[in-house]
Amino acid sequence: MTPDELYAQIRAKRSCLCVGLDTDPAKMPEGLDVLTFNKAIIDATAPYCVAYKPNLAFYEAMGLEGWRILGQTVDYLRSRYPEQFLIADAKRGDIGNTAKKYAETFFGSFDFDAVTLSPYMGRETVEPFLQYPGRYAIVVALSSNRSAADFQYAENGGKPLYQSVMEQCMEISSPDNMMFVVGATKADRLREIRAFCPDNFLLVPGVGAQGGSAEEVIAAGANSRCGLLINSSRGILYASSGPDFAEKAAAAAAATARL
Amino acid sequence: MTPDELYAQIRAKRSCLCVGLDTDPAKMPEGLDVLTFNKAIIDATAPYCVAYKPNLAFYEAMGLEGWRILGQTVDYLRSRYPEQFLIADAKRGDIGNTAKKYAETFFGSFDFDAVTLSPYMGRETVEPFLQYPGRYAIVVALSSNRSAADFQYAENGGKPLYQSVMEQCMEISSPDNMMFVVGATKADRLREIRAFCPDNFLLVPGVGAQGGSAEEVIAAGANSRCGLLINSSRGILYASSGPDFAEKAAAAAAATARL
Repeated sequence: MTPDELYAQIRAKRSCLCVGLDTDPAKMPEGLDVLTFNKAIIDATAPYCVAYKPNLAFYEAMGLEGWRILGQTVDYLRSRYPEQFLIADAKRGDIGNTAKKYAETFFGSFDFDAVTLSPYMGRETVEPFLQYPGRYAIVVALSSNRSAADFQYAENGGKPLYQSVMEQCMEISSPDNMMFVVGATKADRLREIRAFCPDNFLLVPGVGAQGGSAEEVIAAGANSRCGLLINSSRGILYASSGPDFAEKAAAAAAATARL
Repeated sequence: MTPDELYAQIRAKRSCLCVGLDTDPAKMPEGLDVLTFNKAIIDATAPYCVAYKPNLAFYEAMGLEGWRILGQTVDYLRSRYPEQFLIADAKRGDIGNTAKKYAETFFGSFDFDAVTLSPYMGRETVEPFLQYPGRYAIVVALSSNRSAADFQYAENGGKPLYQSVMEQCMEISSPDNMMFVVGATKADRLREIRAFCPDNFLLVPGVGAQGGSAEEVIAAGANSRCGLLINSSRGILYASSGPDFAEKAAAAAAATARL
């Protein structure tokens, strides 16, 4: 998918919402299985979002069955909602020959459009993901969690580390194959990030359960073609724990990250 | 497994070798399947090593079948070689509620002793892995690859980032549940690392294919109870591509990281 195609979908739906599929059996309505729950959430929210982001940890924790459900969820999205942008939230990051295998996993074995990456081991960890036309590396720059400040503000070449990460990644990529994670709890930083990174899409977690505001993110971080994918997970998946969970998820999705 | 138990095994075998199971179907002898190959490598090398480290990327790239083979490989090791220390080389790293799920994956669904973690998102990404007695987080500090220097030498609180990562992780852990990755290609740094991190085990990749020397690592990085796990993957798995692959793997293992 090109950035223009993604933007066309955002305009058509007047939404830049990404629904995070952090599906946790312990939080679902009783009596449902994970795949049935995912399908119901997807059917209910698809008119109000442009992207889905399964969080790999939640599937891996279910063992072999979880890996199977992840594949079935991706296949369901691909067949029913081919316009949706599909992100593997995997935070992978390893040396070149290993990164190449992860790229094969998410862009070959699975049919994701994008995968989130952790940059600690350097540009080499990102490069293999840039070799797939129409697919994206989404590199964590500034995350939304409380311990983001432990290391992400270190000084690298006279700049904060998150900026150095973004600039070094931009040197080896283009907005056609690179996005960045910038947490919604860091909305004050979004304006300055847009000064050195005007064109790339930003994936913004942290609205809802983590306390960030989608409105503030849009005001500070939008560019001429939106350039934002705002993620909400728990606030949508678990909007209700009763039999109306899908209806409440749709309402929560319709109310989040509207343009 | 306690550090003392691990050290006892190291003394008994006079080896601190960890065999990396980065099993690639394209590099294996023809006609073998991955599980059969892994079992043959394990049977041949077990007398000469104290740990095994499957690299998750190589299994994930095989899809559902790869995830199954990973579980079967771990089960085989647990049943036949219960003294071996088992490391999931996964480089995971995400916010707290997600990190908790990854800990469940590797210490619950799988029965690994340890998992490698990427620290970019801060201490919160490590904490859930410290709640399992006898199990270890192994945090990447200074890696062995060419782009390690892109970010790992940034300055954080007046120190190189890798040192800050190690010191902050040491504040929330003990040598009973924390190890660090320090690349063998950085042997010159090992002496200074031992000045501020005398007690933790270090997992050292990068000997063999990546150019590091096990002898230099041992000279610079050993502490009073060895404190090192030196990994070799390609140099052992693919010591021969012929029918003598297991025999050659045993010889390579016997010659690597001897004490």
